[in-house]
Amino acid sequence: MLKKLLVANRGEIAVRIIRAAKDLGIATVAVYSAADAEALHVQIADEAVNIGPPAAKKSYLNIEALLKAAADTGCDSVHPGYGFLAENADFSDAVKAAGLVFVGPSGDAMRLMGDKVSARTAAAKAGVPVVPGSAGRVDGIDDARAILEETGFPVMIKAAAGGGGRGIRIAQSQAEFEQAFPQAEAEALAAFGDGGLYMEKVIGKARHIEVQVLADGTRAIHCYERECSLQRRRQKVWEEAPSQALSDALRERLCASAVALAEAVNYSGAGTVEYLYDDEADCFYFIEMNTRIQVEHPVTEAVTGIDLVAEMLRIAGGEPLRLKQSDIAVKGHAIEVRLNAEDPAKDFAPFPGTVEDLRIPGGPGVRFDSMLYQGYQVPPFYDSLLAKLIVHGETREAAIDRLVRALGELQIGGLKTTRPLFLALAADPSVRAGNVHTRWLEGWLTENAAALAN
Amino acid sequence: MLKKLLVANRGEIAVRIIRAAKDLGIATVAVYSAADAEALHVQIADEAVNIGPPAAKKSYLNIEALLKAAADTGCDSVHPGYGFLAENADFSDAVKAAGLVFVGPSGDAMRLMGDKVSARTAAAKAGVPVVPGSAGRVDGIDDARAILEETGFPVMIKAAAGGGGRGIRIAQSQAEFEQAFPQAEAEALAAFGDGGLYMEKVIGKARHIEVQVLADGTRAIHCYERECSLQRRRQKVWEEAPSQALSDALRERLCASAVALAEAVNYSGAGTVEYLYDDEADCFYFIEMNTRIQVEHPVTEAVTGIDLVAEMLRIAGGEPLRLKQSDIAVKGHAIEVRLNAEDPAKDFAPFPGTVEDLRIPGGPGVRFDSMLYQGYQVPPFYDSLLAKLIVHGETREAAIDRLVRALGELQIGGLKTTRPLFLALAADPSVRAGNVHTRWLEGWLTENAAALAN
Repeated sequence: MLKKLLVANRGEIAVRIIRAAKDLGIATVAVYSAADAEALHVQIADEAVNIGPPAAKKSYLNIEALLKAAADTGCDSVHPGYGFLAENADFSDAVKAAGLVFVGPSGDAMRLMGDKVSARTAAAKAGVPVVPGSAGRVDGIDDARAILEETGFPVMIKAAAGGGGRGIRIAQSQAEFEQAFPQAEAEALAAFGDGGLYMEKVIGKARHIEVQVLADGTRAIHCYERECSLQRRRQKVWEEAPSQALSDALRERLCASAVALAEAVNYSGAGTVEYLYDDEADCFYFIEMNTRIQVEHPVTEAVTGIDLVAEMLRIAGGEPLRLKQSDIAVKGHAIEVRLNAEDPAKDFAPFPGTVEDLRIPGGPGVRFDSMLYQGYQVPPFYDSLLAKLIVHGETREAAIDRLVRALGELQIGGLKTTRPLFLALAADPSVRAGNVHTRWLEGWLTENAAALAN
Repeated sequence: MLKKLLVANRGEIAVRIIRAAKDLGIATVAVYSAADAEALHVQIADEAVNIGPPAAKKSYLNIEALLKAAADTGCDSVHPGYGFLAENADFSDAVKAAGLVFVGPSGDAMRLMGDKVSARTAAAKAGVPVVPGSAGRVDGIDDARAILEETGFPVMIKAAAGGGGRGIRIAQSQAEFEQAFPQAEAEALAAFGDGGLYMEKVIGKARHIEVQVLADGTRAIHCYERECSLQRRRQKVWEEAPSQALSDALRERLCASAVALAEAVNYSGAGTVEYLYDDEADCFYFIEMNTRIQVEHPVTEAVTGIDLVAEMLRIAGGEPLRLKQSDIAVKGHAIEVRLNAEDPAKDFAPFPGTVEDLRIPGGPGVRFDSMLYQGYQVPPFYDSLLAKLIVHGETREAAIDRLVRALGELQIGGLKTTRPLFLALAADPSVRAGNVHTRWLEGWLTENAAALAN
């Protein structure tokens, strides 16, 4: 078992990791930037180290400072949380090179899954359905035309060397394609010095469904799925488990494919295999694998009773996976909503400030994961997540009713938050019916955002 | 289903009941004395009615004021909580006579179980083991000598008309008995105008084990047991589920006996059948039945996933019990500790005051049921319970570790509380080993109380 853990993160996930470590008797070292000296994770850790100025690049993204903090405090391990360096393969390697345990997968596994083309190839090799398209780079226009047989329209043409949405074209028809392909090739060459392209079918209305896996490098299990179709600008805002869209047979296939992929890449730790599910066509497609704990992990904890962060720590400590697949069962329904310091009526503008009043909901089936306390000043430098409210009920309807009740009790005075968004969503007939897809929320917001008053 | 509920209580249980009602879509009316105008239960209810001055006799025990509040606000039902009027049969009858639903058993069931002799008789008739002793009143000294064959020594001789510990004598031997019995008879006659006595074997080192039942007037089920052996002055301070002392076979017998008793008296609602378990002799004995929701109900909720207060409301609304015995399973281990506004280093002297700082623990497996908020002034008029911290883990050891972690995070600034007691108990080898009985804590406190500094 690990003895002393450096928690290389801040905010609610640092608090969450410290809690899990304490539950297991592992000593904890928090790190903080100058902006976070009064943060809750600093207060509840056994020790805390100042790693630099507010700018994340000089603190939470500063590998050297983090490794020095670990060495100075005698840590044997580092948990990266999510965000910041959590999916930085070089950080995983550097932690290992410093003689410490990285609580997560190897740098190689991260690299494999972090690259769009290699992840897609690995998934296909493991028998996981991928979005129809080219197997790696397209070999010229004739190859591209053959691939169209599989993808149909609309189809996405993308620069292999591109990133962050750059170098993407969508063709709606054969005519558009014939024109777009050579243009894309020329542009890619000009922009990236590499004319290589790949192609993927554009999945229209789809649900975001992801499978939680736990693995020890040899064996993997799944903890069933979460559905996170309510997104704004590709950011999940409301997550739940189980998905109402899956039949039991499809759920089995989806989860089995995630386990196959994790085992194929000798994955270790907690990970999430993300899919798009086209419920009209009844097809699912691999999107990517997140090689870290996710923000929305508590919904899985609520329905399975498994402490995922504790399992990560056990695996990192060298224990073989102690759970068998048959140990995992889903009970009831859980929902998580992300309370951000943002004004939903003003295009979700950030709203940092001081928490003047705090009322935390309680009772059965309610969990509140946060770094807030009354008097806490939310710094303006980092992401706007203040708290996650997780509710659990016997059915999806009961969970939504409990969400409404808990949101009614919750008060975060002094800040504008996304609370009104969730009260409105919980009352919406489409959300109540579970009749949503990944682009639904943005459409809904164009009509309803202005009324979301704090 | 009920439509509008008067919550005839205050403090954390009023908050708990309002939460359950809201989860089910039932409108809620809080009542409050002049001392509780700023209380959390008043703030979170849909409506609130001032029912009188601080003295409980004129407010929370004032049947007339409560019924008027229910009538004035159009309630169809009343939940009594625990304490105050919760086990007052006349209140149950009065609520019914006013045309309202009482969320709990009938006045007749309360009377039967509220009287020591009639409860003992009903239990024996239902096949539930009772403490060896007289079947009702002792019929003179010869009958008493015959009963001694069954009870042995020490034996308790008690005035049948007595109450609250008055008119009790303990005889350690035949000689003491021969002297004590006629004296007790004469004293009972003088004190109560009734010389009737009953006798019971004195159970020495025993554990307090109780079985949670749910019943609809026809059918009853159990939700397994809780162990509450850590008591001070007969007040439970730490409760857990399941009991480590029971074999599966004994657990089955104990739970079945509670169901038999509940069905024998046509019980309706949530109730608890309390037992003493003598683990050396491997015998259990019925003590009494509590005809209300208990303070410690959340430990059962944690291990079974059942919302007991919601089930009470469903049954009161006329639904037949929807759970089958086979639906109920125990998962993991849960512990509740009672955080009272008391100074454990000063003989648990009450410590009312203002909550100057409040930090509520969170994360998986932690529940905090309370009426506290930062700035809340704890009034001096009522019981000292501030909050219940409930933890749930895979094993008893994991639950205790989590309790320590959660107590570490908990801060209730401005008051002295029983928090240090629980940190010390969690570290005690006898508590860790589960090697305690109902008198253990008082002995432990004589040696350790002085060190329990806030």
